[in-house]
Amino acid sequence: MAGNSFGNVFRITTFGESHGVAIGGIIDGCPPGIELDFEAIQKELDRRKPGQSDIVTQRKEPDAVTFLSGIFEGKTTGTPIGFSIENTNQKSKDYSHIKDVYRPSHADYTYDQKYGFRDYRGGGRSSARETASRVVAGAIAKQVLNQVKINAYTSSVGNIFLEKPYQALDFSKIEDNAVRCPDPEVAQTMIDRIKEVRKAGDTIGGTITCVLQNVPIGLGEPVFDKLHAELGKAMLSINAVKGFEYGSGFCGAQMLGSEHNDAFNVDGTTKTNLSGGVQGGISNGMDIYFRVAFKPVATLIQKQETIDNEGNLVEMQGKGRHDPCVVPRAIPIVEAMAALVLADFYLQNKVYK
Amino acid sequence: MAGNSFGNVFRITTFGESHGVAIGGIIDGCPPGIELDFEAIQKELDRRKPGQSDIVTQRKEPDAVTFLSGIFEGKTTGTPIGFSIENTNQKSKDYSHIKDVYRPSHADYTYDQKYGFRDYRGGGRSSARETASRVVAGAIAKQVLNQVKINAYTSSVGNIFLEKPYQALDFSKIEDNAVRCPDPEVAQTMIDRIKEVRKAGDTIGGTITCVLQNVPIGLGEPVFDKLHAELGKAMLSINAVKGFEYGSGFCGAQMLGSEHNDAFNVDGTTKTNLSGGVQGGISNGMDIYFRVAFKPVATLIQKQETIDNEGNLVEMQGKGRHDPCVVPRAIPIVEAMAALVLADFYLQNKVYK
Amino acid sequence: MAGNSFGNVFRITTFGESHGVAIGGIIDGCPPGIELDFEAIQKELDRRKPGQSDIVTQRKEPDAVTFLSGIFEGKTTGTPIGFSIENTNQKSKDYSHIKDVYRPSHADYTYDQKYGFRDYRGGGRSSARETASRVVAGAIAKQVLNQVKINAYTSSVGNIFLEKPYQALDFSKIEDNAVRCPDPEVAQTMIDRIKEVRKAGDTIGGTITCVLQNVPIGLGEPVFDKLHAELGKAMLSINAVKGFEYGSGFCGAQMLGSEHNDAFNVDGTTKTNLSGGVQGGISNGMDIYFRVAFKPVATLIQKQETIDNEGNLVEMQGKGRHDPCVVPRAIPIVEAMAALVLADFYLQNKVYK
Amino acid sequence: MAGNSFGNVFRITTFGESHGVAIGGIIDGCPPGIELDFEAIQKELDRRKPGQSDIVTQRKEPDAVTFLSGIFEGKTTGTPIGFSIENTNQKSKDYSHIKDVYRPSHADYTYDQKYGFRDYRGGGRSSARETASRVVAGAIAKQVLNQVKINAYTSSVGNIFLEKPYQALDFSKIEDNAVRCPDPEVAQTMIDRIKEVRKAGDTIGGTITCVLQNVPIGLGEPVFDKLHAELGKAMLSINAVKGFEYGSGFCGAQMLGSEHNDAFNVDGTTKTNLSGGVQGGISNGMDIYFRVAFKPVATLIQKQETIDNEGNLVEMQGKGRHDPCVVPRAIPIVEAMAALVLADFYLQNKVYK
Repeated sequence: MAGNSFGNVFRITTFGESHGVAIGGIIDGCPPGIELDFEAIQKELDRRKPGQSDIVTQRKEPDAVTFLSGIFEGKTTGTPIGFSIENTNQKSKDYSHIKDVYRPSHADYTYDQKYGFRDYRGGGRSSARETASRVVAGAIAKQVLNQVKINAYTSSVGNIFLEKPYQALDFSKIEDNAVRCPDPEVAQTMIDRIKEVRKAGDTIGGTITCVLQNVPIGLGEPVFDKLHAELGKAMLSINAVKGFEYGSGFCGAQMLGSEHNDAFNVDGTTKTNLSGGVQGGISNGMDIYFRVAFKPVATLIQKQETIDNEGNLVEMQGKGRHDPCVVPRAIPIVEAMAALVLADFYLQNKVYK
Repeated sequence: MAGNSFGNVFRITTFGESHGVAIGGIIDGCPPGIELDFEAIQKELDRRKPGQSDIVTQRKEPDAVTFLSGIFEGKTTGTPIGFSIENTNQKSKDYSHIKDVYRPSHADYTYDQKYGFRDYRGGGRSSARETASRVVAGAIAKQVLNQVKINAYTSSVGNIFLEKPYQALDFSKIEDNAVRCPDPEVAQTMIDRIKEVRKAGDTIGGTITCVLQNVPIGLGEPVFDKLHAELGKAMLSINAVKGFEYGSGFCGAQMLGSEHNDAFNVDGTTKTNLSGGVQGGISNGMDIYFRVAFKPVATLIQKQETIDNEGNLVEMQGKGRHDPCVVPRAIPIVEAMAALVLADFYLQNKVYK
Repeated sequence: MAGNSFGNVFRITTFGESHGVAIGGIIDGCPPGIELDFEAIQKELDRRKPGQSDIVTQRKEPDAVTFLSGIFEGKTTGTPIGFSIENTNQKSKDYSHIKDVYRPSHADYTYDQKYGFRDYRGGGRSSARETASRVVAGAIAKQVLNQVKINAYTSSVGNIFLEKPYQALDFSKIEDNAVRCPDPEVAQTMIDRIKEVRKAGDTIGGTITCVLQNVPIGLGEPVFDKLHAELGKAMLSINAVKGFEYGSGFCGAQMLGSEHNDAFNVDGTTKTNLSGGVQGGISNGMDIYFRVAFKPVATLIQKQETIDNEGNLVEMQGKGRHDPCVVPRAIPIVEAMAALVLADFYLQNKVYK
Repeated sequence: MAGNSFGNVFRITTFGESHGVAIGGIIDGCPPGIELDFEAIQKELDRRKPGQSDIVTQRKEPDAVTFLSGIFEGKTTGTPIGFSIENTNQKSKDYSHIKDVYRPSHADYTYDQKYGFRDYRGGGRSSARETASRVVAGAIAKQVLNQVKINAYTSSVGNIFLEKPYQALDFSKIEDNAVRCPDPEVAQTMIDRIKEVRKAGDTIGGTITCVLQNVPIGLGEPVFDKLHAELGKAMLSINAVKGFEYGSGFCGAQMLGSEHNDAFNVDGTTKTNLSGGVQGGISNGMDIYFRVAFKPVATLIQKQETIDNEGNLVEMQGKGRHDPCVVPRAIPIVEAMAALVLADFYLQNKVYK
């Protein structure tokens, strides 16, 4: 009920506030005997961490994960994997100015309304810092799914779009630039735009496209837990996400059936893939691809009028070190959530064998 | 883990194939003492049922629900509500032509791959007939939430868009026309387009917009079970859905933070509502609105080349009575799923009181 | 949360009141491709049904199950199996005398307190009639587990005990007598005792012993969902159950470790089996055996003083057709619940393969 | 599925092996705004910890809990409460002698069979050390339930029984002696017996009785999640438990209905309480009492013949510091699990209000 768990068989439960002692989680249901690649896990965290480039927040947090259980002699034991990441860079004083204030388009007001009060430091539980735990779990899920290829990239920043279809891209170039767009030219335009926005004390939205390749046929549990429905929930649960589409998506709603149907080849693959690798809620072995919309970050380095918790109008201004665009750091989070969904369905599907 | 349940506290589990004995479900967790309006329930089913107008399938199914338990002297008892809807119009012979054939962009191939075989009659469990059970449960959920207003309408068919924002619409006109678009002129254009498409033996996609008003503040369970994440999953679990966006949605990804932030009024409401009534995954009391994309129906009354279950190329043609556009009949399904999500979170939230 | 579901992978949800339209349920997660033996299912229902012998209630209910979905051409399809059993013998007028009365040691008072009111006819949802749905699901679970042998028998009625260990019994004789005790002499003494009690308008308690043989090694999910913990919950959820012990049970609490430890044979079996086939919450391949205590039925054909729902003292007397001892009819229910637990863990354990 | 979570609304997930870095857990669903008494939490841990008296294991572990999240300015925030307890006294070398050996009546063999290998140090995940996490969560659950009184005590050691009913006991004396039996004379006999057994390098079983008073009416969720069924599962999930009975328990199975029924007083209380405070699976406001059987600890300071993981017969002997009788240290664990069950049902029941 309380919504801090995700997955059924491969199940993660997370804890932690932005400025508490630590964040972390428990992975329950990871199969035993997997020899973990700890560097690969830390590498995913590093892709998410603040301060990694000049277009993201300049906060410094090492985000080093400590595993507390469930691993013996380098291998998973089948028992729950507990882990924690210390909050080393807490600087709680930074946040005294928002203690009684409801920042526009943040979760301050709704948390207070729901829970009666809140840990206001850095957004508390509603901070995107929480997603570091997802990245740890997702990095392990990727190792459960070692044959599956998961690649996410920035497909737009504001109204700058990467117009090419994913098939025309070289995924090995995603990490070559700070914005994680595999087309170098478009990437540079995006980076310039983000810097411009940052200079203005503003922020900007964007979209991420994610492609899942080599997914086994048969994943997904109709009628409610369809593969794309869980992917959608997974993505929409990430901070700042406003939309999700897969396969033909919203464009598909403009099409005719005679244009949209994916004709079969004799081996069961399809000539086109407007279905996006999922039919009837179950993977069909074709590439799964989807797009996720992120709103602009709500914290501006500008004056905004807002209210405090007594209903007074007050003026506030974001301080310090914030992301002008959430998209580059959200790439590993999108991949992690996709990996969690796939690992869970992959293990669930074993029941039918 | 098998995915035929939805919800935690207000929980529905459904059963049934298109051409089996019956479809139906069990609602567990409905609060006791609610005096049910049975006519209202049947009315929702009638909005979904085949044959209701000349732009939907002309199959005839009465879709009369029988309640089997959980209701005494007209009131819910707090015990599980079992219900069933007979499949009266089975005509199984209609489907012998697809027994061994995988229809393009249907679930035939994936069901066979996942389960080893399938009930091929009318799509079996993958048929949208299953959604009638959701409508029954949703109609009861609406009665749990009697202060909340739930209105869905057709906002596009193909490339015909209802351009007005929902605030400019009169929801009382939604049921005035067969396509369920509250603007009479746009509705007529949509209807004409659907008829044209049907005449060509083709089908067409569309979108539905749904508006939830008077939602209590505080619904939603971060960090994974955010209100909009569950709404997204709920919608994506409906047959033929390819995308979901709420509030500013994909447009929001093109905006600046200074444009997108919703400034507060002193009473906690906001001057704009690009957030779409949800902040940090929790309802803030403003209108919740979202848009759902439906692909064109896969069954065409045209010849298509496809394969059979032995990998032979075969020619097939859809027969009989199919929807040229799924959107008009999907309106009550979207509302039902929204009601299920809200009722569940409404009851969950009582735990905090 | 509402507690009408049992199991995770092989999951049953039930509905129905004693005197409503029907009882029934949905089995979700049954593997596809199982050729069901419908006679075997009905046979289990017949073992539970009223009127089967002269020591049980003489109500007449055919208890014929109708399957509504999830089965095609005689085989399970992997989709949810819906089923219902009509309540043909409702005679609601029989129960008007208890409409406002709280029967001692029944659930009348607690249901009214919890839900505000209740369907008083025949005990409504709290009636043991509900267990017929468990028997249907359990009969299917047995077919999922076809190599496992499940045998329950009456091991005591009042203070008449079957003193022999289960190894000394011939399980093929369990169904030879009305009380379902495999020792003919002890069975006759039990039957005589039950008749004597019935003549006095009284009722009597008893115990059931259940033995599970050929259970695969590795079932059970520590630390909370240990195999014996789920078996215990399953048994305690049956009407009238007051206690559960497995292996050495309460006697084991009197023993020394040097007496109690089960020494290994070289093949991993053990020389003794005080562990009862479960170590650390996981099956070890040895026989699992447990004992379940049933209280005497609360409905007496005697005058009892009690209260009504306004707190007045009133006199009441059970009428008609009740079981003098619940144990003989509870045998198939105990077996069904054991089968549900094992089938669920058997399927869960596939995840580790 | 993987069984390391307990509860629905008030839900604990635990992690940790005996000799890993730490054990701990996450409590999700704790209501916000509870001012925690941290001393009371530590006090519960101290009641469970090794070395507290001369009849328990002499290992030294401080068992100090660190809270990592979910608490702000001393109060719960409604977000998940993460906590950990360091394993300071690991001495892994102690356990090299059991690396390849299957200790009789431990979980070594079954863990290897289920998971393929195991963390053999100190029993790994199967060690009762895991229960410290339960005690932390239970101590918080007690604070959620502050009007409820929970008292457990030792009611037998071997064949030494405390014959008095719980009503004749003074619960304030439970902590007066090392064995936690509120009758000083019986306590001394028990202590002497445990010392005698320890001297022989042997161990001994026992029982714990637990009494829950002032429980609100209406807790429990029929038909499967009956209050006593969850209590039973909770107790049976504790290491070394072999049986559970509540109210009249196994004795009730020997009684007549006319002896067993609890007659009502006009206020809804009952004159007797053989029902044990639960009717139809729902609390009726009377005292809930139950009894839990613990087998003797399997680790003996004696030579035992056993097998290794290659099927060779080997001789082994437990070393060092083990409990001769688990019961005194299990008292706070029984109370903790009872508190978890009650807190969960208490919060679930709010949904009906």
